[in-house]
Amino acid sequence: MKLYFQAEIPIKIRFSDTDAMGVVWHGNYLRFFEDAREAFGIKYGLTYLDVYKRGFFTPIVKSSVEHKAPINYGEEVTAIAKFHPTPSAKILFDFEILNKSTGKLSATCHTTQVFLGVESREMELIKPSFYVEWEKKLGIKI
Amino acid sequence: MKLYFQAEIPIKIRFSDTDAMGVVWHGNYLRFFEDAREAFGIKYGLTYLDVYKRGFFTPIVKSSVEHKAPINYGEEVTAIAKFHPTPSAKILFDFEILNKSTGKLSATCHTTQVFLGVESREMELIKPSFYVEWEKKLGIKI
Amino acid sequence: MKLYFQAEIPIKIRFSDTDAMGVVWHGNYLRFFEDAREAFGIKYGLTYLDVYKRGFFTPIVKSSVEHKAPINYGEEVTAIAKFHPTPSAKILFDFEILNKSTGKLSATCHTTQVFLGVESREMELIKPSFYVEWEKKLGIKI
Amino acid sequence: MKLYFQAEIPIKIRFSDTDAMGVVWHGNYLRFFEDAREAFGIKYGLTYLDVYKRGFFTPIVKSSVEHKAPINYGEEVTAIAKFHPTPSAKILFDFEILNKSTGKLSATCHTTQVFLGVESREMELIKPSFYVEWEKKLGIKI
Repeated sequence: MKLYFQAEIPIKIRFSDTDAMGVVWHGNYLRFFEDAREAFGIKYGLTYLDVYKRGFFTPIVKSSVEHKAPINYGEEVTAIAKFHPTPSAKILFDFEILNKSTGKLSATCHTTQVFLGVESREMELIKPSFYVEWEKKLGIKI
Repeated sequence: MKLYFQAEIPIKIRFSDTDAMGVVWHGNYLRFFEDAREAFGIKYGLTYLDVYKRGFFTPIVKSSVEHKAPINYGEEVTAIAKFHPTPSAKILFDFEILNKSTGKLSATCHTTQVFLGVESREMELIKPSFYVEWEKKLGIKI
Repeated sequence: MKLYFQAEIPIKIRFSDTDAMGVVWHGNYLRFFEDAREAFGIKYGLTYLDVYKRGFFTPIVKSSVEHKAPINYGEEVTAIAKFHPTPSAKILFDFEILNKSTGKLSATCHTTQVFLGVESREMELIKPSFYVEWEKKLGIKI
Repeated sequence: MKLYFQAEIPIKIRFSDTDAMGVVWHGNYLRFFEDAREAFGIKYGLTYLDVYKRGFFTPIVKSSVEHKAPINYGEEVTAIAKFHPTPSAKILFDFEILNKSTGKLSATCHTTQVFLGVESREMELIKPSFYVEWEKKLGIKI
């Protein structure tokens, strides 16, 4: 059985999130995934600022999104981030956006992040030691 | 030999496009792809408004992006949209973001759009007739 | 003594809210004021959708913002909307953004909204009757 | 007669600039003013990067916007920045957004910027010497 490390966060749709079709503009979903990733970081101690203090950025290098159903203004959604263990020096997440107002799955997403030295601006080819310890502490099986 | 129908557009990076890493925030690339798609529409007669007047929206249902190199404020990029013919009732595009300031390929993207009736808000399972005519007029081989 | 009808809402700063100066980009404050206005609408029954159902949009025609202190990524703010009664066919709000992490007032704002018919797209010169009733119900003294 | 130092730039409205009212969301005008300010900077040698290289940021501390007429998707606008000389250690601009498709004035704006040391993050109380020289070179009368 696969056990997920995951976190979720409720998101209120802003009027400014919508477009002239009357639904949330597709590019704004990236903000919702960011919210879920940060909720995960807060829950498990891996926020953007935690990572930055250890000397790293973790930019997104790949993302793929599937839109299943539109989101209208006034609807409420839940963004879910599921951590996906990997042996490589990457951070992988699967995301879901659930539309609480309609009960429908609105979108799914997969992202790949790498470790970039704040000073060097070079990509790390092996996992930074602080990250290996973080995995160990959480009991993450790869 | 595969002949592409394609269009490109220069894009100036806005200060508001950047984030605290000092580079363009990954979600803002979706705006650049949108610019390239619209440049294609203007060149070949398939803008958002052309399609809307025929009774359709063409929302993005899938997108996948690869980030190869960051873009800094002050740099200039070119966004390129390449039309990808398909027999199904979908519009497929491949995109590239070239960083003119560094000469590097910054990002690639693939998107899938479907046809949605403006009134019905239902997805069309076969290509709308106006679109079939548009393909024919351009001599698009599927 | 002037009694305010007001509402407040906590806001988490997103990474995408920041710019290359490392602080929240000034244009993004408009989103925070929008959040406070909507929180007010939920508290007192005057949300965007409530107004829309009565046949009106209430677009912003004037806004003035003062920035007192920057907001950094990772900081938490409270957005406060204070309703400002007026005899004219306008909706007036005063806003404050309080930085909870620093205890400082970050920004203030005043906005003016008008009533626009959804169908006519014309500006109303007198208050719509639903709005007069809403004011009466709340006991708003002009 | 008052002589203005001014610059203008054409702006294409993006689909993502619109909201569910079908017009450009009011907060996005700040991006258009930013474009005009940067066009001014390019024309007269006072871009964000020029200023940054001299050791300063010039954040917006005040902005006031008036919206005269909405902008629809597909319309083209011109953003104009007019420099407003002042003896104080501030940069003042007046802006106009002209809707080329309708011939109407869409919005006006006034902004105030201050000089902030990149290192100190403190506000300068007198004009930095590079800026005094810039004014002199342009023959700006205060």
